[in-house]
Amino acid sequence: MAILVVGSVAFDSIETPHGKVDHCLGGAATHFALAASYFTDVRVIAVVGEDFLPKHEAVFTARGIDTRGIERAPGLSFHWTGSYAGTLNEAQTLGTDLNVFERFEPKIPEAYTDTEYLFLANIDPVLQARVRSAMPNVRMVCGDTMNYWIKDHAANLAVVLRELDVLLINDGEARMLSGETNSVLAAEKVMAMGPKSLVVKHGEYGATAFFSKRSFAGGETPRPFRAPALPLAEVVDPTGAGDSFAGGFYGYLASQPKLTPAVFRKAMFYGGVMGSFAVERFGTERLQGVTRAEIDARFELFREISHLDTAAE
Amino acid sequence: MAILVVGSVAFDSIETPHGKVDHCLGGAATHFALAASYFTDVRVIAVVGEDFLPKHEAVFTARGIDTRGIERAPGLSFHWTGSYAGTLNEAQTLGTDLNVFERFEPKIPEAYTDTEYLFLANIDPVLQARVRSAMPNVRMVCGDTMNYWIKDHAANLAVVLRELDVLLINDGEARMLSGETNSVLAAEKVMAMGPKSLVVKHGEYGATAFFSKRSFAGGETPRPFRAPALPLAEVVDPTGAGDSFAGGFYGYLASQPKLTPAVFRKAMFYGGVMGSFAVERFGTERLQGVTRAEIDARFELFREISHLDTAAE
Repeated sequence: MAILVVGSVAFDSIETPHGKVDHCLGGAATHFALAASYFTDVRVIAVVGEDFLPKHEAVFTARGIDTRGIERAPGLSFHWTGSYAGTLNEAQTLGTDLNVFERFEPKIPEAYTDTEYLFLANIDPVLQARVRSAMPNVRMVCGDTMNYWIKDHAANLAVVLRELDVLLINDGEARMLSGETNSVLAAEKVMAMGPKSLVVKHGEYGATAFFSKRSFAGGETPRPFRAPALPLAEVVDPTGAGDSFAGGFYGYLASQPKLTPAVFRKAMFYGGVMGSFAVERFGTERLQGVTRAEIDARFELFREISHLDTAAE
Repeated sequence: MAILVVGSVAFDSIETPHGKVDHCLGGAATHFALAASYFTDVRVIAVVGEDFLPKHEAVFTARGIDTRGIERAPGLSFHWTGSYAGTLNEAQTLGTDLNVFERFEPKIPEAYTDTEYLFLANIDPVLQARVRSAMPNVRMVCGDTMNYWIKDHAANLAVVLRELDVLLINDGEARMLSGETNSVLAAEKVMAMGPKSLVVKHGEYGATAFFSKRSFAGGETPRPFRAPALPLAEVVDPTGAGDSFAGGFYGYLASQPKLTPAVFRKAMFYGGVMGSFAVERFGTERLQGVTRAEIDARFELFREISHLDTAAE
């Protein structure tokens, strides 16, 4: 079933130990949409400026992504400048030019109103809540946020959290949101704020899913589930890894008829798979060109590096 | 087959957010020996002082551990004082009183010379190398070390590394030893120094095994393997978690007739299992009283939280 993602379509200028790129296509909604497009239909709501050219739109349409919700506004697109050093685990933001994003008012095209799966990428929770309200009939809502909204927009974020089936955040965000350093207690507190399930991303160590009794229709509450990340000898550019994880995760979920614990676990692996591809090249390059066969092979690799009994033996 | 561990038997004074203990039995060899004792016979070489009483020795003998190699010396036993805060991932050392350990000269009892599995716990690499040389017929040698030896005793450590089948260290130590921030490149560099295989511990995120073509008899080089750690709502005292991991890991290996990739993977899980028990109580309390049934049940729990297909479905 189709996923609608609302979030940023942007240009990124990035420096990592492997090189430097200037104004490459990026943004949370872009990484998410490309990653999810290998699993299901994807629709995008975002705003871009006059620097968003037909060649940029073609990156979406080449993957069959519906771009009717990408609004054009006078001015320049959102532009992020960042650099990575050391373990590549954390970006240093050097500049955030909101540009047309500053006055972003998400508009939902008529053609999108039958969407069943909604993803609220990391934007102002006021806008996340507005989109959620405008889509009363969605079957599932997942979302992301970041330290800035947690710290300074807690009341607005609380409104969004109450509506979420799954929240996807990283370790630091989980600690900040809950005020707890222990990951299990942090997860319980976060789920008490609304999300039925919580996915906490650990960067190079993978991700953990936490469940509540509201996670699945039958009321069962599985143990936490830990998905690995692939040990990579070369991480070219970590930008968008988390959004690509979310895209693989949610894309797979939306492609399945029913949300079960087994489906959720596989979705965690597909999240890791898409995140591992994303970081192999700068920007969205790798996510544009990966094949379904490569995705399937890497899924098996994730199984091999984490399962006791492998097909090889 | 029997394992011989050489390392510290000590007293620890520890403060964590869950409380405070004074002079509880600890030391790397103690945690290792107790964890390994659930899988195979264990022998210990260490030195203790006059404060090491029959009740302390009984902790070992109650688990069937051979204590003939624990030498008594005049004075006090090694005493470590530390505290944990926040995520409990790292201890702050407040005091290290070497006491009798300062003049530790490992002596190998005649009864130990047929040992097939040697574990060199974290002590001066000069002593590690001496014990290794005195045991020329061992079948397998595993070891641990720490930042202090890596930084200031590199030449001595290099001698030990050349003899190791498996080195078990944590992320920070792997980075320091290799000078590499990328975990895959770090592992390659470390294995080039000698260890046939490398186990890197990630604290609450589990552990990763890296292999070389010298890892297994057939020359096969499996992909890295990632074992989870159990998300725990309450970590009472992380002291000895790494040594308990090593004990579970090596104890299981030594109990198996042949070292295969499948055996290595299960050993990684048993390492995590014993580490997860160790942190549930202060000192060695939990490791003294765990049952084989609890170990087996937790092993299945580790499978459940990391495997796509679980028995429950």
